[in-house]
Amino acid sequence: MRLIRAVEPLSPQVQILDPFWSSYTELVRNAVIPYQWEALNDRVKDAEPSYAIRNFRIAAGLEKGEFGGFVFQDSDLAKWLEAVGYTLASHSDPELENTADEAIDLIAAAQHENGYLNTYFTIKEPGKQWTNLTDAHELYCAGHMIEAAVAYYNGTGKRKLLDIMCKFADYIESVFGMEAGKIRGYDGHQEIELALVKLYEATGEQRYLKLSQYFIDERGRQPHFFLEEWEKRGKTSHWVKGIVPPPNLEYHQSHLPVREQSAAVGHSVRAVYMYTAMADLARLNGDTELKAACETLWNNMTGKQMYITGGIGSTHHGEAFSFDYDLPNDTVYAETCASIGLIFFARRMLQLEVKSEYADVMERALYNNVLGSMSKDGRHFFYVNPLEVWPKASERNPGKHHVKPVRQKWFGCSCCPPNVARLLSSLNDYIYEVSVESNTIYTHLFIGSEAEFKLTAGKVSLKQHSELPWKGLVQFTVKPEVGGSTFALALRIPDWCQGKPPVMSINGDLADYREEKGYAFIERQWGEEDIVEWNLPLQSQLIVAHPEIRANAGKAAIVRGPLVYCLEEIDNSAPLASLSIAADTPLTERFEAGILGGAIVVEADGYVKNAAEAWSHGKPYQPLGLQTEAAPLRLKAIPYYLWGNREQGEMHVWIRT
Amino acid sequence: MRLIRAVEPLSPQVQILDPFWSSYTELVRNAVIPYQWEALNDRVKDAEPSYAIRNFRIAAGLEKGEFGGFVFQDSDLAKWLEAVGYTLASHSDPELENTADEAIDLIAAAQHENGYLNTYFTIKEPGKQWTNLTDAHELYCAGHMIEAAVAYYNGTGKRKLLDIMCKFADYIESVFGMEAGKIRGYDGHQEIELALVKLYEATGEQRYLKLSQYFIDERGRQPHFFLEEWEKRGKTSHWVKGIVPPPNLEYHQSHLPVREQSAAVGHSVRAVYMYTAMADLARLNGDTELKAACETLWNNMTGKQMYITGGIGSTHHGEAFSFDYDLPNDTVYAETCASIGLIFFARRMLQLEVKSEYADVMERALYNNVLGSMSKDGRHFFYVNPLEVWPKASERNPGKHHVKPVRQKWFGCSCCPPNVARLLSSLNDYIYEVSVESNTIYTHLFIGSEAEFKLTAGKVSLKQHSELPWKGLVQFTVKPEVGGSTFALALRIPDWCQGKPPVMSINGDLADYREEKGYAFIERQWGEEDIVEWNLPLQSQLIVAHPEIRANAGKAAIVRGPLVYCLEEIDNSAPLASLSIAADTPLTERFEAGILGGAIVVEADGYVKNAAEAWSHGKPYQPLGLQTEAAPLRLKAIPYYLWGNREQGEMHVWIRT
Repeated sequence: MRLIRAVEPLSPQVQILDPFWSSYTELVRNAVIPYQWEALNDRVKDAEPSYAIRNFRIAAGLEKGEFGGFVFQDSDLAKWLEAVGYTLASHSDPELENTADEAIDLIAAAQHENGYLNTYFTIKEPGKQWTNLTDAHELYCAGHMIEAAVAYYNGTGKRKLLDIMCKFADYIESVFGMEAGKIRGYDGHQEIELALVKLYEATGEQRYLKLSQYFIDERGRQPHFFLEEWEKRGKTSHWVKGIVPPPNLEYHQSHLPVREQSAAVGHSVRAVYMYTAMADLARLNGDTELKAACETLWNNMTGKQMYITGGIGSTHHGEAFSFDYDLPNDTVYAETCASIGLIFFARRMLQLEVKSEYADVMERALYNNVLGSMSKDGRHFFYVNPLEVWPKASERNPGKHHVKPVRQKWFGCSCCPPNVARLLSSLNDYIYEVSVESNTIYTHLFIGSEAEFKLTAGKVSLKQHSELPWKGLVQFTVKPEVGGSTFALALRIPDWCQGKPPVMSINGDLADYREEKGYAFIERQWGEEDIVEWNLPLQSQLIVAHPEIRANAGKAAIVRGPLVYCLEEIDNSAPLASLSIAADTPLTERFEAGILGGAIVVEADGYVKNAAEAWSHGKPYQPLGLQTEAAPLRLKAIPYYLWGNREQGEMHVWIRT
Repeated sequence: MRLIRAVEPLSPQVQILDPFWSSYTELVRNAVIPYQWEALNDRVKDAEPSYAIRNFRIAAGLEKGEFGGFVFQDSDLAKWLEAVGYTLASHSDPELENTADEAIDLIAAAQHENGYLNTYFTIKEPGKQWTNLTDAHELYCAGHMIEAAVAYYNGTGKRKLLDIMCKFADYIESVFGMEAGKIRGYDGHQEIELALVKLYEATGEQRYLKLSQYFIDERGRQPHFFLEEWEKRGKTSHWVKGIVPPPNLEYHQSHLPVREQSAAVGHSVRAVYMYTAMADLARLNGDTELKAACETLWNNMTGKQMYITGGIGSTHHGEAFSFDYDLPNDTVYAETCASIGLIFFARRMLQLEVKSEYADVMERALYNNVLGSMSKDGRHFFYVNPLEVWPKASERNPGKHHVKPVRQKWFGCSCCPPNVARLLSSLNDYIYEVSVESNTIYTHLFIGSEAEFKLTAGKVSLKQHSELPWKGLVQFTVKPEVGGSTFALALRIPDWCQGKPPVMSINGDLADYREEKGYAFIERQWGEEDIVEWNLPLQSQLIVAHPEIRANAGKAAIVRGPLVYCLEEIDNSAPLASLSIAADTPLTERFEAGILGGAIVVEADGYVKNAAEAWSHGKPYQPLGLQTEAAPLRLKAIPYYLWGNREQGEMHVWIRT
């Protein structure tokens, strides 16, 4: 199935109206976006400064000063603008729009005559443009600003930033490519590839698609661009002084041409941004070889290198994948941006071929790793999303310094917070997919919303009411513009229903459905207003990990629907490692209104082996026989996404059985 | 009790004759020492070069060239010479002695007119002596050469190296101290302190003892020497270019005056070398405050920060202690040198006060961490001694790159191999202690040996025959020079006998004994030749860890007498994490002659949860209910010290119960 939507609006008109998610999209609008604007302007007290706006002011000649922050600092403003674009698409906000327009004026003022735009190379290393693609993130920053331009254009209809970025993209096209005189290179951090696809979709300009294809296909070819560039540069690096070893090609996913890559390796955000573009290109060009590469990489990454929370990238060294089944819970990385990129990739895979496993992973990453990265107040963030925390170890063991037990206000490298903002403000784009030709509306995510779709069979308005994640009832109100038209609804059958098929009813009557690739299809002639009820069996389960995932041997995680649960010290007794769960006792569920805005908590029988009295001798080891019996106790688990919002303490997702 | 032995030979005359240990002391003599000489001369193929001899040749003006290796490279030659000194004390070897004498001639030629000796500052940074005590290891190298000088003097009676080092020590005394015009500093790596005590004991010169006391007492005082030095140096470091942050004072154990330190922190080898000197000084000066500090540090380190193998220092970041109960098995450091230093410290604590717990720890570190660090051929070494190994993780997860699954030939920083050599070649010094005044001979370690002691009651010859570690029978033949003299034997009651007191017989008759501080005392009038049999209950046990040691929750280790056991992949099935041991089934023991020179292996009933067929869906997670039953299997454990001597594979000390 190919869903080609070039030069069409990027997504159907969807407005989120959901008791669970609306609070987050509102939080992004009312707290995250204004807060991040303050952060970009270095006005958040006790937080690391961003320098992003200041850099643009200096580059525009409005202020004197040194460049501040990382070489890729421009991208933080871009991601913020992108989020603003999504927000303005669903909610008018003249003041915010005005602020954004002023930022865009600043960007315009910082652009060079020839279209080039990058504050680092404007302020700090003029004349050194395009001399260190490996490290310097020039095309990465360009890509983010293109994404912002497209989102802002779609959200407001204003072309100014789009024109700025078309001009830059045209200039990039004149610099890069296989033709003589051009640089036959690509960026060290993939991003421009997926952005150019968006620019193509927004403008209809085929050459942006071709440029994206060039960057993807050139990557990893011999002779190797990064190695040649490194030689030419005198074997230097942007990051450290002096002569450095050649770049790590796996880190940049350029160790092989992309079609020959079979396992997710290297920096995880780079990887998923690249896979996203690959899936886009496979779809838009009907490129079956590229599609097969996407599937292979998807299978490896989600089958062997993904945490149960949808986190990817298990080592903080290079923020990278390590290898199959190496998923330590305590030294984990699972960067927020990586899970967001995984959601991008999953969405593109759904556009390539609707299969529920893609949406399952999207949902897993969204409800757990991504949602958990942000505090309830929208002003504190995790960069690293651990599955096991011992605060003292984070403080005293340098191998765990990267694992923070509390969310931070901002980061020197603050890629994650604005990434959360742009994902949540565009969440409406992830709920549905339509196949115009086959008159099918797919529902991937069960998020309350009002939507309108154009099918060959005519316009359809669809209202979704969802009680997830707390209850399994989802209700669709289907209203075709023309009553009696025939089209299909396809509702995802989540993987967490395993073994218990969801029950469908139409206008109160039980209804059969055809199952295909994990979706329940109802193709029928619809009335003027039909009600489809979709009852998802929602119950807490103990989930175990593949035996090759050594870190989880002998352990289980509590999962309820899309939500992964965890134990926190405040609800249980420390050390959490001394607790175990009885594998055969029922998991009881209880809605606790007082906990962090209300949530279902799960309780279970467990045991504690603590027995301080048996250890009065002060020695660290003793015979098993001297140990006192494990004492029964009641375990209480809360949804993972809520952890770390009360007092600092231990947290465990995986519990010994 | 104070055992003052200043200006007496460092130890009683003891010769090891033991079926288990003689093979190791012979290995050191016949393989390790010759091999390391080749390594010091850069003649080991495919191993990292040492440069140690070459540096001395260049410093002596015999060769032209650049300094090679680390700033502390001289200490490798020193440790080798020290081991040679110990070896020559028990075995004449004219050829080896000749080689060592030539090396000493080289050292003499490299010494400056004023006594200064250090090849780095002679070759690479002349004029920069004593400008970076924090980083540059000058006094550390001096300390190791002093230890070598004392050992070589004791072993051969030759004074040349002793005179060289007295001259250097005299010069050091003129440079350091509280008097005006002297540097009021101390070394970044403690070592000189314990070495000066040895020099005092060898020469009787009180001022060496006083200089040691100065270095110990000055450490950590305000204003802080390392901070002042760093300012004065222009905030630079030996290790990295440019301006650096102030030195980490905990790393160097100089965050507080030593008497105020209550927990083991920082670089673990530095720590235990310092504690060793503290215990020496507490004993020699009758300094009860310093003794109390030693006891506090001992209790923290061995009660809360020690692996079951006697490894210490749980993080490779700074090769350091992290904090109480943080003892991860897979990202472990447990450096070989640190366990050797722990043995030094334990011995000094025994000299301060005979308590079996000191000898228990000494034995634990010796039979497991230290012995396991060397291959059966004496030519390959571990620097890091893990309790859990997954070879692929060592290769592909950068957080575990320091954990090698196979022993290495030599290291760029090769402190550990010569440290093993000097410990094993002086192992005879660790078996006994005598209290001359109270006419007591203490046996700390059950290692077959022939010894002669001088007591107030007269000379005693003692022959020990030990069947450890395989059998629990130890037999002593006691022959006083004058029959009928009265003195006491005190035999350690190992902690692994817990609950089952060892049985003593004298000349075949069961004998009572008085127990004090973990030692069995028999004070009697001895005949011309009496036979004391000491039957230690030796059986495999499952040992559990303190509940605060999160890494070992729900797990047990197999321990038999002094030996910790482990599972290796070759004897069991991978992944080892999927195996568990039945807590209540008997552990069976079997001598396996064919395994690595013969060893008792332990077998037990266990289970495997693998069930590849249940995972055919390719997903990493599934409900607990879908899991197949654990299948029974027979587990086979080998002594930890033998691991990694067959093919590369997984290894686990701690097994799920």
